[in-house]
Amino acid sequence: MKIGKGVEWAAHACTLLAGLPSDKSLPKEALAEFLGVPAPYLAKQMQALSRAGIVNAHRGAAGGYQLAKPIDVINLWDITAAVEGTESSFRCTEIRQNGPCAMTTSECANKCHIASAFHEAEMAYRKVLKQTSLKALALNGANDMNETTKVDVLRWLDFHSTTPLKKPTYK
Amino acid sequence: MKIGKGVEWAAHACTLLAGLPSDKSLPKEALAEFLGVPAPYLAKQMQALSRAGIVNAHRGAAGGYQLAKPIDVINLWDITAAVEGTESSFRCTEIRQNGPCAMTTSECANKCHIASAFHEAEMAYRKVLKQTSLKALALNGANDMNETTKVDVLRWLDFHSTTPLKKPTYK
Repeated sequence: MKIGKGVEWAAHACTLLAGLPSDKSLPKEALAEFLGVPAPYLAKQMQALSRAGIVNAHRGAAGGYQLAKPIDVINLWDITAAVEGTESSFRCTEIRQNGPCAMTTSECANKCHIASAFHEAEMAYRKVLKQTSLKALALNGANDMNETTKVDVLRWLDFHSTTPLKKPTYK
Repeated sequence: MKIGKGVEWAAHACTLLAGLPSDKSLPKEALAEFLGVPAPYLAKQMQALSRAGIVNAHRGAAGGYQLAKPIDVINLWDITAAVEGTESSFRCTEIRQNGPCAMTTSECANKCHIASAFHEAEMAYRKVLKQTSLKALALNGANDMNETTKVDVLRWLDFHSTTPLKKPTYK
């Protein structure tokens, strides 16, 4: 069971965007530079976040990405689901209905107990991520920084951020 | 995030082996026939279960697989871990230490909060699987069967099971 690194990148990108003033956006090249990751691959994750309504993407010279919602409304499951999708990690192929002693459809009215346990586990997993707000990630992340780093980050954001048109031109 | 179908096969194989008398084993071809899955690929999952000490594998004419532990001791996480491994699904690449405002090693004394949330989620996932005993899976699965199917399964197991040497010749 693996989560692609795109989720990690997207989560850090959102945490950085959480530090922007609400009228500002950050060009994708700046975002990639800050995170130290390749811009073309990061762009794919940002497009996924945009499609999910987590960020707004503005085109043009003053374009870039900004959060589309308040930071206490976005959570880590939203970000994970945007990048990885919402499909269950366990796929039940109804093995009960195979072979020489196959169970009948009526005997399979209850969901397979193996599949049920994986479903319950997945819900527990998602619950923890849903309880992890972007606000908490951003604040806790900032709390780990010393004052010099905090000032560096704010200066860097101020220098690289842009003021896009009010209305996003694409999502 | 995906769990391979080998986990589903292994879990159903263990559930079937739970119905065997303790001195009996089931040849791999019979196990594959019962589950309606390809024997060579199932054999890989059974080898993984054997390496993890969940099943004993007996060679020879009267060989086959049997559970190596009581059914209330084996749980769904044991089976999943045997097949998929125990590596965390989320891999933290310490993005905090990248880029123009990289955090210092001392600022990163606390684990990244994104990685921490995924770790907590994974522990919640595993906890549900750990709480799901093979005994519960076998009993609940049998409870879904009507009497005819139960009799069919027991007859089939009686016909196909073998009595191996007491000591497993390989694991």
